[in-house]
Amino acid sequence: MACEGELEEVGVGKLRTEAGAEIPEVRIAYQRWGEFAGDPHGKNNVLLIEHAVTGDSNVADWWADLLGPGKALDTRKWCVIATNALGGCAGSTGPASAHPDDGRAWGSRFPALSIRDLVRAERQFLEVLGITQVHAIIGGSMGGARTLEWTLLYPESITAACVIAVSARASGWQIGIQSAQISAIERDPFWHGGDYYASGKTPREGLAAARRIAHLTYRGEQEIDERFGVQAQRGEDPLGPYRAGNQRFAVNSYLDYQGEKLARRFDAGSYVTLTEALNRHDVGRDRGGLNKALATSTVPTMVVGVDTDILYPYHQQEHISRNIGNLLAMAKIVSPVGHDAFLAEARQMDRILRNFLTLSAPDGLELETAFSGSEYYI
Amino acid sequence: MACEGELEEVGVGKLRTEAGAEIPEVRIAYQRWGEFAGDPHGKNNVLLIEHAVTGDSNVADWWADLLGPGKALDTRKWCVIATNALGGCAGSTGPASAHPDDGRAWGSRFPALSIRDLVRAERQFLEVLGITQVHAIIGGSMGGARTLEWTLLYPESITAACVIAVSARASGWQIGIQSAQISAIERDPFWHGGDYYASGKTPREGLAAARRIAHLTYRGEQEIDERFGVQAQRGEDPLGPYRAGNQRFAVNSYLDYQGEKLARRFDAGSYVTLTEALNRHDVGRDRGGLNKALATSTVPTMVVGVDTDILYPYHQQEHISRNIGNLLAMAKIVSPVGHDAFLAEARQMDRILRNFLTLSAPDGLELETAFSGSEYYI
Repeated sequence: MACEGELEEVGVGKLRTEAGAEIPEVRIAYQRWGEFAGDPHGKNNVLLIEHAVTGDSNVADWWADLLGPGKALDTRKWCVIATNALGGCAGSTGPASAHPDDGRAWGSRFPALSIRDLVRAERQFLEVLGITQVHAIIGGSMGGARTLEWTLLYPESITAACVIAVSARASGWQIGIQSAQISAIERDPFWHGGDYYASGKTPREGLAAARRIAHLTYRGEQEIDERFGVQAQRGEDPLGPYRAGNQRFAVNSYLDYQGEKLARRFDAGSYVTLTEALNRHDVGRDRGGLNKALATSTVPTMVVGVDTDILYPYHQQEHISRNIGNLLAMAKIVSPVGHDAFLAEARQMDRILRNFLTLSAPDGLELETAFSGSEYYI
Repeated sequence: MACEGELEEVGVGKLRTEAGAEIPEVRIAYQRWGEFAGDPHGKNNVLLIEHAVTGDSNVADWWADLLGPGKALDTRKWCVIATNALGGCAGSTGPASAHPDDGRAWGSRFPALSIRDLVRAERQFLEVLGITQVHAIIGGSMGGARTLEWTLLYPESITAACVIAVSARASGWQIGIQSAQISAIERDPFWHGGDYYASGKTPREGLAAARRIAHLTYRGEQEIDERFGVQAQRGEDPLGPYRAGNQRFAVNSYLDYQGEKLARRFDAGSYVTLTEALNRHDVGRDRGGLNKALATSTVPTMVVGVDTDILYPYHQQEHISRNIGNLLAMAKIVSPVGHDAFLAEARQMDRILRNFLTLSAPDGLELETAFSGSEYYI
């Protein structure tokens, strides 16, 4: 396994997508914290953490208060593994990766992915590591969608799941707002239908525009207003006699910053690919519909939502909890922050994750640690 | 006055904007239904109706169930007047109008407007008609913003006001999402900084993209999902092996239709101008702040909101009602439709408007009708 916290890539073979396209050589990059203990094909201490759409495997960064010795995801007890999603741009195969035929970027040749494809690639990755069972899978937003699909694709491999701030399928509203983001990228003159990688230019402005829209769905409406209201950006005058893009309200300066920050670190092709995967999120597809699919779930699942979430409103988590076959518990994060509260409200998430791990291993996990040989109880 | 229901233009002279620019010759187009009765400088039967951002003076169209003989806005009793907003493209002066200096479109020379500028132009229009008093002003969304500004700019001219589905100022979230729409237009290669009128091309795609975003804030999140969910558009496959813009989910076909429909009938320059006016909406500006400004209001005002409004959430109408100096009544439209419910829920709006008119004229209006000479009571 990778050294503690270090990014490592693993070849996991070919993948045939749900829609019938093929990626001949998939690589998955991942990170690990804490030592493995237990049986790789039975009871063990693996927690698989699933990141959000523009997140990555570096859980120690985006859940810094929750991962580490003594924290909720206690790395003295648990072996925490996180992969970078297939289709992304943080080490795993995606549209910016070299195509095996010609070494040029996949670009528009990269197939459309579903959330199930992301999960299947991750499953293949675990098998390459020699692991077919994990204690639990935990994820929020796109990570929650992947977690939920895990429980339906590979229920025999999971003791428990924690599904955070997501729905059982994309809603019409989500598809609409996510497609507006894809459109913002596609209308950038440097997009070139997805084949911009050799052009020397990137569709930065389109990606930034997409992120500005997305960010407004990630934060609470009242939180944004309390922070910015109608304030002018310092040194700028948004109330002048003529409108000017460099004379901004403070909220627009903030959104510009969020857009530019993402454009620097994220690939537009990956953004389109993973946003499209969210559009295709539907646990009911080919399973007799949404509620039948949820009802078949046997994995004890905790469902978590945020009261002010615009993107995945709380009624969507209530829907999952009412219909899922084996509900472990439900938790509501109360916060002005909106969707991002599962990242921002560390105190509440700490309580929720500790409760989840207690519920999922009520008698403690009796395991031999890989490094000490001594038994311990979680 | 204009013939019943017919569009007529009136020159109202020059207007100096709140931010200090000048429009030398403003024209305002308007429509009228019902005969004027009473004193143009005192008690009379005028109801001034204010349209929404891409609406127009044709109230008989967008409030068809509410305007007419025997309806809530009973044209046998009331003289209903509606103007097209300054800055728009339905007959009143806007960026597509001919500049008096050279006869070419104003384009980027057209100044930034505030909601107050729209109201001042309308006030000048009424004065040209010879009217300085109206019974009531009624408006939703941008029309609600104008109504609220009317009550603060010209309180002595109004007996009552009905402010629907709006806030006392733009929120940070609104400015963000509205600016995303402006950005979608500005990034269209045919925008040319606003000076596209002589180019033979219009920024249709940018305007359509703006409308797709806007429309998602005009409708309820659950309503959109109940109507479309993850359905494919008939004859298209949004789940194919490669993403394709012509293989759509039904919701995207619907949003495309909304965008194209607006792009056919509305000018992109007007869209930017009026959206910017909404960004600048703030009744507190230069009046000692939001709540002080509201507290000074003396006009009996009814405040109406929609429980599922994403764009102007109901807490914003609660805020107005708690702080306004002379609250006449409060009403909540309960609807899955979201913001557009004030246009769509005719039955509820009928009840609300009838109640408003009863409250605003509790003893009936005793007026001589212009055409019959007989007295009547409303």
